Amino acid sequence: MPLDLHLIAVGKTRDGWLREGMAEYEKRLPRYAAYRKTELAPGTGGKTGAKGGSKANPEVIKRLEGDRILEAAGDAFLVLFDVEGKALDSPGFADWLAARERANQRQLAFAVGGAWGFSEAVYARAQARLTLSRMTFNHQIVRLVAVEQLYRAFSIQHGEPYHNG
Amino acid sequence: MPLDLHLIAVGKTRDGWLREGMAEYEKRLPRYAAYRKTELAPGTGGKTGAKGGSKANPEVIKRLEGDRILEAAGDAFLVLFDVEGKALDSPGFADWLAARERANQRQLAFAVGGAWGFSEAVYARAQARLTLSRMTFNHQIVRLVAVEQLYRAFSIQHGEPYHNG
Repeated sequence: MPLDLHLIAVGKTRDGWLREGMAEYEKRLPRYAAYRKTELAPGTGGKTGAKGGSKANPEVIKRLEGDRILEAAGDAFLVLFDVEGKALDSPGFADWLAARERANQRQLAFAVGGAWGFSEAVYARAQARLTLSRMTFNHQIVRLVAVEQLYRAFSIQHGEPYHNG
Repeated sequence: MPLDLHLIAVGKTRDGWLREGMAEYEKRLPRYAAYRKTELAPGTGGKTGAKGGSKANPEVIKRLEGDRILEAAGDAFLVLFDVEGKALDSPGFADWLAARERANQRQLAFAVGGAWGFSEAVYARAQARLTLSRMTFNHQIVRLVAVEQLYRAFSIQHGEPYHNG
């Protein structure tokens, strides 16, 4: 039974070019694994304290978005793509996915945070934190890089030529 | 005097969506620095040894592409984006660029290799090797990530809101 991958991102993929780029990999992933994507509504942030005003409160936003991520993830093994996570190289990520399969952790949810990152509840619930880079990527570009790495990982597992040019 | 950035990549940026994505950042970079891009013809590889055949020879390709990179870089301070390079975070990359400016190293060439990587001559000539990720990215996606990180670095230096959402 193949892995069941669920990419969870906060906010719509705004730009047509990014949707097109992601589709390049999303259309190839089903060769190797079930794949679906959920784009959650971003938190609206509410009003801040006594001084009023309509400035968004990052903590409120993160909590709201976190609740939505946890609901979308359901019972899946939850993996956060987070700049502070563990840095694997691409063959290491391929091995890591194979280890999930061997451990019968087939339902995998990969979450990409919003502009403010993940809430404490999300960190507490997550089973793994991986980083795609020590650098901070635009949180829209992260999802493109994420699907490319998922595709690359399977192409490594299957010895396909994609990984080496 | 602002920095003078030259992105050197091997091969055309094939996909319209990637060209569009890069343009998003390329059109904003001139606020902060001179910027231009050179896309070199990829090496054709020639024929392999005694057994003949038309299989491309990676070493021949790398050497050809390397010569073209060095020619394009001219006298600039040459930086390689290379998976084995130094891993900076985004504020660290912003500081690194500021240090180049202080050292009066204003002509910076950033090279992104082809599918087979860089030749020995390119490694020998380069003044710095930085990595955008421990993971191997598609060499087309690398150039998108590279321009985004250049733009992000300047937005950090200038305290623009881009970096934090």
